[in-house]
Amino acid sequence: MINIPKPGTVRFIGIVEDAGEPSRIRIFPECCDGLQHLHRFSHVIILYWLHLRDNEEERSVLQVAPRRHPGAPQVGVFASRSPSRPNPIGLCVTELIELQNCILRVRGLDAHRGSPIIDLKPYIPRADSVPDAKVPDWTSHGPPT
Amino acid sequence: MINIPKPGTVRFIGIVEDAGEPSRIRIFPECCDGLQHLHRFSHVIILYWLHLRDNEEERSVLQVAPRRHPGAPQVGVFASRSPSRPNPIGLCVTELIELQNCILRVRGLDAHRGSPIIDLKPYIPRADSVPDAKVPDWTSHGPPT
Repeated sequence: MINIPKPGTVRFIGIVEDAGEPSRIRIFPECCDGLQHLHRFSHVIILYWLHLRDNEEERSVLQVAPRRHPGAPQVGVFASRSPSRPNPIGLCVTELIELQNCILRVRGLDAHRGSPIIDLKPYIPRADSVPDAKVPDWTSHGPPT
Repeated sequence: MINIPKPGTVRFIGIVEDAGEPSRIRIFPECCDGLQHLHRFSHVIILYWLHLRDNEEERSVLQVAPRRHPGAPQVGVFASRSPSRPNPIGLCVTELIELQNCILRVRGLDAHRGSPIIDLKPYIPRADSVPDAKVPDWTSHGPPT
């Protein structure tokens, strides 16, 4: 028997202060020590909270028709990068342009201004890069995610 | 002014039933419809809850000495893949071997038996693969993460 733990709590470690290319992220002072040596990595995986989708309706969505991808069939949310999903967590692989005084400037973050940050992880090609991963054809049309 | 939302709640969508190579994951029946078309992807990003680290002590850790990586300096947790971090969320890029009846068999999942699953996302090389991302030298020794 495996016991299923109760729901977990995510605390926000920072916030998207400015969305765009680049985006600006402020890490809260109490978490700032966690950034040491991050500048040694060129890319960072950013997990953020899709706060505008944090409601019962959006969290109940299990299937979507990816509108931004012409030709896409209806797919399960776990086969899509839709922001409507049981846990409103977004994931982007971003390029770290600058890190100074608890402020990150990154390229490739598809988050809104005001989105809370949950976690930053260094991008390590040995673990995270699979250039030849197979995907269905519809993912090659429209934006990357 | 940007308002900082209150902490968020993560609900578990499944659980690691068997850890190893491959690992076996069971998605709970109420989330099973979200898996449609996932089998069209060869790789899946898995977010899981590091339930053994979900306590105040582990969540307060901001700096670590990555023991599994000889020569690593003390680094911030956001510059490491340490399981001790403000939000106990693990991320692995896994190879999807089989998907049948809400059970996934995957390779490359570094989770324990009993770890709750938070989210699955399809791996899309166009968005997620950066083969030439720069990393500090210590990351090339020891395990991938």
